[in-house]
Amino acid sequence: MATRRYEFGRMNEASHPDSIRAALVEFLSTCIFVFAGEGSALALRQIYKEPGSSAGELVVIALAHAFALFAAISASMHVSGGHVNPAVTFGALLGGRISVLRALYYWVAQLLGSIVAALLLRLVTNNMRPQGFSVSIGLGAFHGLILEIALTFGLMYTVYATAIDPKRGSIGSIAPLAIAFVVGANILAGGPFDGACMNPARAFGPAMVGWRWHYHWIFWVGPLIGAALAALLYEYVMVPIEPPHHQPLAGVDY
Amino acid sequence: MATRRYEFGRMNEASHPDSIRAALVEFLSTCIFVFAGEGSALALRQIYKEPGSSAGELVVIALAHAFALFAAISASMHVSGGHVNPAVTFGALLGGRISVLRALYYWVAQLLGSIVAALLLRLVTNNMRPQGFSVSIGLGAFHGLILEIALTFGLMYTVYATAIDPKRGSIGSIAPLAIAFVVGANILAGGPFDGACMNPARAFGPAMVGWRWHYHWIFWVGPLIGAALAALLYEYVMVPIEPPHHQPLAGVDY
Amino acid sequence: MATRRYEFGRMNEASHPDSIRAALVEFLSTCIFVFAGEGSALALRQIYKEPGSSAGELVVIALAHAFALFAAISASMHVSGGHVNPAVTFGALLGGRISVLRALYYWVAQLLGSIVAALLLRLVTNNMRPQGFSVSIGLGAFHGLILEIALTFGLMYTVYATAIDPKRGSIGSIAPLAIAFVVGANILAGGPFDGACMNPARAFGPAMVGWRWHYHWIFWVGPLIGAALAALLYEYVMVPIEPPHHQPLAGVDY
Amino acid sequence: MATRRYEFGRMNEASHPDSIRAALVEFLSTCIFVFAGEGSALALRQIYKEPGSSAGELVVIALAHAFALFAAISASMHVSGGHVNPAVTFGALLGGRISVLRALYYWVAQLLGSIVAALLLRLVTNNMRPQGFSVSIGLGAFHGLILEIALTFGLMYTVYATAIDPKRGSIGSIAPLAIAFVVGANILAGGPFDGACMNPARAFGPAMVGWRWHYHWIFWVGPLIGAALAALLYEYVMVPIEPPHHQPLAGVDY
Repeated sequence: MATRRYEFGRMNEASHPDSIRAALVEFLSTCIFVFAGEGSALALRQIYKEPGSSAGELVVIALAHAFALFAAISASMHVSGGHVNPAVTFGALLGGRISVLRALYYWVAQLLGSIVAALLLRLVTNNMRPQGFSVSIGLGAFHGLILEIALTFGLMYTVYATAIDPKRGSIGSIAPLAIAFVVGANILAGGPFDGACMNPARAFGPAMVGWRWHYHWIFWVGPLIGAALAALLYEYVMVPIEPPHHQPLAGVDY
Repeated sequence: MATRRYEFGRMNEASHPDSIRAALVEFLSTCIFVFAGEGSALALRQIYKEPGSSAGELVVIALAHAFALFAAISASMHVSGGHVNPAVTFGALLGGRISVLRALYYWVAQLLGSIVAALLLRLVTNNMRPQGFSVSIGLGAFHGLILEIALTFGLMYTVYATAIDPKRGSIGSIAPLAIAFVVGANILAGGPFDGACMNPARAFGPAMVGWRWHYHWIFWVGPLIGAALAALLYEYVMVPIEPPHHQPLAGVDY
Repeated sequence: MATRRYEFGRMNEASHPDSIRAALVEFLSTCIFVFAGEGSALALRQIYKEPGSSAGELVVIALAHAFALFAAISASMHVSGGHVNPAVTFGALLGGRISVLRALYYWVAQLLGSIVAALLLRLVTNNMRPQGFSVSIGLGAFHGLILEIALTFGLMYTVYATAIDPKRGSIGSIAPLAIAFVVGANILAGGPFDGACMNPARAFGPAMVGWRWHYHWIFWVGPLIGAALAALLYEYVMVPIEPPHHQPLAGVDY
Repeated sequence: MATRRYEFGRMNEASHPDSIRAALVEFLSTCIFVFAGEGSALALRQIYKEPGSSAGELVVIALAHAFALFAAISASMHVSGGHVNPAVTFGALLGGRISVLRALYYWVAQLLGSIVAALLLRLVTNNMRPQGFSVSIGLGAFHGLILEIALTFGLMYTVYATAIDPKRGSIGSIAPLAIAFVVGANILAGGPFDGACMNPARAFGPAMVGWRWHYHWIFWVGPLIGAALAALLYEYVMVPIEPPHHQPLAGVDY
């Protein structure tokens, strides 16, 4: 399946320098994203010592993630496709938009970027322990899992519709903003329940550096399932529905 | 009247797959929008147990709606025109931009999307009851109705000017952001008075799943009237005013 | 001076329907902007009864103005040039970008739009008295005047550089966002001192409907001076500095 | 090294008027940026008298900087390249994108812009003393220095990837937003630790007008090192990796 198409991000397996550059770009963009995202959680701990939860804190977390993700995607879109998220890479793989080899490159780069960001945060904050993600009191693993599936479905659907769909047209130019804003909105909705992770790399680095593994599997399984569902739906239901004679650039398909 | 033009979103009644795909896209985008919008209200309940009202909470609600609507419109613009709102569909219908049949498709899809979002929220929040919309103490149904008309007029006017007006030019590329931001601004102004709904689908799913129908009619009648006024004004006053010889693409109309 | 050029917003004095449509668009966009801007101030009064001042409230006011102004400019850019502000119209007039007659049309339309918005707000809020603008305790009229000049200078400079400068190139497509965001930033800086008005129409409608005229002159004189300084600087210093042989569209200037 | 290429911002050393105009634009844009940025800190002092730190205040500071920087970059991008930051100018110099002479022009203009903004703020706030930047209690100069290096690395990397990289393609049109948002995100993460300056000019004017020099060197050394690392990495590692036959505009390089 993974051998079907590779136009997403104009990647070419054969050209090794391209793959290395793309992996390097995913590493750096994920590092920037996790540094600001996890950093904003530590910033609130610096302010409140024992951060409870408030509307203002929720806005800080949501904006930090949305703003940083927008920059991270914009800075990598033209080289790697701007995944910055192993679940998005998984969806693109299932949809046949990238190869297994390239997906492996990306996953390693994304996870390393997250670990480096978490280590840097630990250094500059004079050894604050990263927080990572968990499920709120009153909810169980089941609720967290379904929530991550639902939130990541919305994220991957937006990625597919605005950045991958071959018929997306001029919408493609605002894809990074649409992806960043759906993440921001989902954090405003899901943050108080399970942190609204939607991204295994976002969870992994802080979990490792902060050594907090409770419920960690949720933030792998949920996003991967959600992204898979959205990618399969878009690739095998939405794209084929479109009748071929609607393609604006095809002039000879009657 | 509805048979006049169909260029909005490049729809073609005859091609069934197109209509199905458009309805599916409206369903998914409305689901994403309502999940984040109503979800942010439940998130505040999770934080505060008894959420009163504060400036920080207002920002959370406004940003969740603006960000999610931007993603929802961006993800559906190129397929369905990006309505995500039965009132917008109604305005486009009155303006002759879509057919009655397609409008029916959209309405059903939007309402189903909202119900599914509300059900999912009930599931992942361990059975929290959705809040939906109401009118604040000190105000009557009359005030809520006029407010919904005014707010939705501004929304539909922005939709028409940036996404439908055939002379909109390059502004079209920022239409999703203009529409999302006018909704965000209107929530910051109208939120504490009646929730600033502007969208019957946004109200319907949570009302059904939370079974709260008091004042519910306001959030149908107000948005439909407001959207109708804006659409009729734009279609039958603004568009005709423009003298034909200003059309930049028409070279032979003297 | 006003007869020099009219390319800003592609306006043509002679074509009456165009002028009427442009004035109508300025009326509606100013109405949308003032409704959300003044409405957000009343929304805070609805929440807090006696709104003091807090960081959260400042964010509400700044975002309401920035978001609404972005929509208002986007919806009117292609028809009227997207002024939505008598001071911006004054700057464009001094720079020779619009005629005196058209400026008069705009001013009347903008002021009427603001009055209608304030009246509507009074209606839907069950007769709350609009607040308008004033100068904070501890500061005098002099400070407010200089502040309005400085803030409006920044606004008009951004308008000129991104929406009027004939060499702005592709930056023009993000002009509405640049203008909206400089207003949002200026409110975050100037709000607690004098409200950071930068727009006589924004002040006029609420002042009339709320009948509060103390210090009102500041919000006319300051913005008009600030806009005039920026327009004259840009038109008569910045534009002429540019050597003609840099014009990318001129192919015969060697 | 500085003689290699000058395409960034389409600058030409020889044309004096161009250099003067670019310096004037950097002066004005930095003035607008610092006025809103430092002004938002003073605005919080006006609200709270003794501003502690809260999530709401952090949002005010981050949005004021992000919004103002977006406008400042947008207004100067087409003339000077939109640096508005001596560290960015330093990175562009090391990468061979501007000449030493032009960098000197920019630095003087940026520092003067910051001083004028701080003086204006002192005037309109009835002599409030600007705050500038410092390192939080519990952290040392070392932590602040590393943090500034990390944050500015992310900023300069985003600048290079979205505004300088010759292969950036259509991403270039959203470069100002990516740069503004990475600054906003970095403030949300780093603000409570050392203010998250990332810009020597942002620190210099307020430091001089408020005469606060403690730790001031950190906000020069950190940003300059961070920008240098990102520029050298991008220019000498990322750009060369790209195989030449991928250049979309080069048709004869096999």
